[in-house]
Amino acid sequence: MSGPKQFYDYVDANQDSFIQRLSEAVAIPSVSTDPARRDDVHRMGSWLESQLNKYGVTTRAVPLGQQELEGKVLEYPPAILGRIGDDLSKKTVLIYGHFDVQPADKSDGWNTEPFQLHVDRESGKMYGRGSTDDKGPVLGWLNVLEAHHTLGLELPINLRFCFEGLEEDGSQGLDELIATEVAKGVEGWFHGVDCVCISDNYWLNTRTPCLTYGLRGIAYYQVVVSGPASDLHSGLGGSIYEPMTTLILLLGKLVSVEGRILIPGIYDGIAAADSSELQKYQDIDFSVADLEKIAGAPIALSEDRVTVMMGRTREPSLSLHGIEGAYSGAGGKTVIPSTVSGKFSLRLVPPQTPEDITKKVLSYIEAEFAKLNTKLKMKVELLGGGNPWVADTKHWNYEAAQRATEAIWGQTPNYTREGGSIPVTLTFAQNLGVNVLLLPMGRGDDGAHSTNEKLDISNFINGTKLLGTYLYEVANISAQK
Amino acid sequence: MSGPKQFYDYVDANQDSFIQRLSEAVAIPSVSTDPARRDDVHRMGSWLESQLNKYGVTTRAVPLGQQELEGKVLEYPPAILGRIGDDLSKKTVLIYGHFDVQPADKSDGWNTEPFQLHVDRESGKMYGRGSTDDKGPVLGWLNVLEAHHTLGLELPINLRFCFEGLEEDGSQGLDELIATEVAKGVEGWFHGVDCVCISDNYWLNTRTPCLTYGLRGIAYYQVVVSGPASDLHSGLGGSIYEPMTTLILLLGKLVSVEGRILIPGIYDGIAAADSSELQKYQDIDFSVADLEKIAGAPIALSEDRVTVMMGRTREPSLSLHGIEGAYSGAGGKTVIPSTVSGKFSLRLVPPQTPEDITKKVLSYIEAEFAKLNTKLKMKVELLGGGNPWVADTKHWNYEAAQRATEAIWGQTPNYTREGGSIPVTLTFAQNLGVNVLLLPMGRGDDGAHSTNEKLDISNFINGTKLLGTYLYEVANISAQK
Ligand SMILES: [Zn+2]
Ligand SMILES: [Zn+2]
Ligand SMILES: [Zn+2]
Ligand SMILES: [Zn+2]
Repeated sequence: MSGPKQFYDYVDANQDSFIQRLSEAVAIPSVSTDPARRDDVHRMGSWLESQLNKYGVTTRAVPLGQQELEGKVLEYPPAILGRIGDDLSKKTVLIYGHFDVQPADKSDGWNTEPFQLHVDRESGKMYGRGSTDDKGPVLGWLNVLEAHHTLGLELPINLRFCFEGLEEDGSQGLDELIATEVAKGVEGWFHGVDCVCISDNYWLNTRTPCLTYGLRGIAYYQVVVSGPASDLHSGLGGSIYEPMTTLILLLGKLVSVEGRILIPGIYDGIAAADSSELQKYQDIDFSVADLEKIAGAPIALSEDRVTVMMGRTREPSLSLHGIEGAYSGAGGKTVIPSTVSGKFSLRLVPPQTPEDITKKVLSYIEAEFAKLNTKLKMKVELLGGGNPWVADTKHWNYEAAQRATEAIWGQTPNYTREGGSIPVTLTFAQNLGVNVLLLPMGRGDDGAHSTNEKLDISNFINGTKLLGTYLYEVANISAQK
Repeated sequence: MSGPKQFYDYVDANQDSFIQRLSEAVAIPSVSTDPARRDDVHRMGSWLESQLNKYGVTTRAVPLGQQELEGKVLEYPPAILGRIGDDLSKKTVLIYGHFDVQPADKSDGWNTEPFQLHVDRESGKMYGRGSTDDKGPVLGWLNVLEAHHTLGLELPINLRFCFEGLEEDGSQGLDELIATEVAKGVEGWFHGVDCVCISDNYWLNTRTPCLTYGLRGIAYYQVVVSGPASDLHSGLGGSIYEPMTTLILLLGKLVSVEGRILIPGIYDGIAAADSSELQKYQDIDFSVADLEKIAGAPIALSEDRVTVMMGRTREPSLSLHGIEGAYSGAGGKTVIPSTVSGKFSLRLVPPQTPEDITKKVLSYIEAEFAKLNTKLKMKVELLGGGNPWVADTKHWNYEAAQRATEAIWGQTPNYTREGGSIPVTLTFAQNLGVNVLLLPMGRGDDGAHSTNEKLDISNFINGTKLLGTYLYEVANISAQK
């Protein structure tokens, strides 16, 4: 262990009070998407701020503006920025986390009250909304701070914190805040940051710790086909061009049943994996059966586990999400919808960007529409997007995280990329120009956005040790170099 | 005019009181689909029954059972059966109409209160919910009865009435009622009926009266594709078979952009139009521009008006209605839906029946699904259906209606088929085994189910004369034969 023995002893001795604090945090239902719960998100921010202050962290609550939601003007919860340590001889690590949570209601299928942490000592699991996403990891950092503060131990590095309360609602205002702070230069909150560590992800399975070094980007589109002035009775069928027919035919041109994207040029520039990258995939402890457990059915696109993992994380994909404007209820309704919007998105990998692929998507769909030769109108548009992100795993930031993981879990972590996006990752990487690491606390079966979200006690306690150890490893490695 | 002069004079002299009675009827908001308005539907039935009684019609209110709607047990409004005349030397005509209406609220875009008849003398139009669908036509019959009763004129034929209060809610219980009455034989309410006349349809345009002799049938299907146990994050895209992709590809195999149905054998047995049928279409006063006015856009499948009319009424069609289980809101949501149901229906023409075409639909979709070779599950099922109906227009029932139309409107009526369905038409034709006629009162721009529904005063008054004259023509023709 690269940290001092006192630290590990303190963590072991204070498990119960750490769990007690997690109970307190879970009991504040800080659901950012629910206007009725907005006050609780603010309350959660204040609670977090006072905890940080208690352990010597200087904080600033940065207002992020207002929004109108369901007819009410609501104050966005502020971002809580924190700093401790200004020793120029030490590295400075920026920690990100979020204190808002997904909605939850017992009636959704929870076995226990979602906003009351249920600690099951027998199974070693703690159930509650936010336990693993993302209050557990955020409190992991509080545990580290408390141990050092109480023991009078100096932290091995300088720390900066950026905690937000709108992650589950699109991180409104956060990109601007980060850009603004960076633009301040020496005066900025993030000045001097050497690397970033984010704990808002999970192991791929329930057995093997991982470090996540890549996320796919996204480009979200809608194809709108219109014609009739209003919805028509289907008794008119057979006499007019129907928007749904055209839309379905267009959506059917986008992707094969096996997931191959049919848009010309979409795979251009995506490099094949070299042997070291292939080795990373080979090393990952993840089987086709693991994937099919997540999907809940034997529907993997391949029987080869590396093919499946690469399809999910280092290849682009295209998913059809649904149709707006058509009948979507149960049973039947004989209507010819007048305007229908097909929604689909692509998950992107380097060197794809939303800008680049949008040109290809638009010209392909427009050409296919022209071939159909209908009297209807069509437009296709980008609704939103974000770039993919891949970090350099040879960086000392990853080296430190790997050593810490090996020390705490006794296993070399899997190096993984994820199929989804965490947009703030890219914002930090681009604005600060430093290495970003995703260092997970929880397991793949935690059910972050589901009912009965949980965090294993062992992941909370070992995770606290992991985060602390990671700081010592960062200090050690930089001292050696 | 084949009716007595007194009758026409009475109608002319009593226009205002007829309109007054229509105001009374419109003022009862008998919306059958709204549980809160159910009492009004019952009240409307009682009102109608007492009007019939006033003019010597024997009535019976037949209970149709109960339903559970939004947690309340509600009594279905009864069918109001009526009979007047038992002269074996006369023909017996069965009249159908409905006394319930579509929902309406001023805020939907009505210029006047929907349940307050607004009589605009300048334009000659009467606005109000139910004015044309179907209270105007039902009251046309009351006007005829009143004239004969007040004048002491004997009706030229025996009349039977079947009025229902659930037409806009699926005519619950009506098929059973008709079958039950027919099964009673001589004791049944409809015993001895020689023909049926239904006024629940409209001219094709605003200029030319018509007689409607055909309606398309319908078969409504859903294709359900499933795989994942629950909706998945699209970050999994590229590693699993996605139900939406398969569904969209299957729906894309059903119909061409020009409306040609791609299911093998679906057009089997549909006879080409012979010269007399072609002539009927040639004679119809309906242009491509009329169709495009209805659609609100220049989207006709053909520039040839006969092709367009035949496509709408004597050819089958297939419309895609929407998808259940996929994202259907505005904006974007990155979800891979786990189970999606595509809804589509076919409009049918003789000799197609739902039973017959369902075999073809199922085996085609199953074969196309097998070709896709996915690991997903698929099932396709018939949700509901009804046979098409075409009447013999050479029957004296149509001859009488044509003569009456020529006498009142000074024009030979167009013989039309409609693209939609009025299921009770077929029920009467099949159960009673007699000729059924659709004899419209209102015009093509009445807006039956829309805001600002209206009936022209001239259509109400001439329509009353038309219905009376039709009875005299039935009597005359049968006397001649
Ligand atoms: Zn999170
Ligand atoms: Zn989350
Ligand atoms: Zn009607
Ligand atoms: Zn209607």
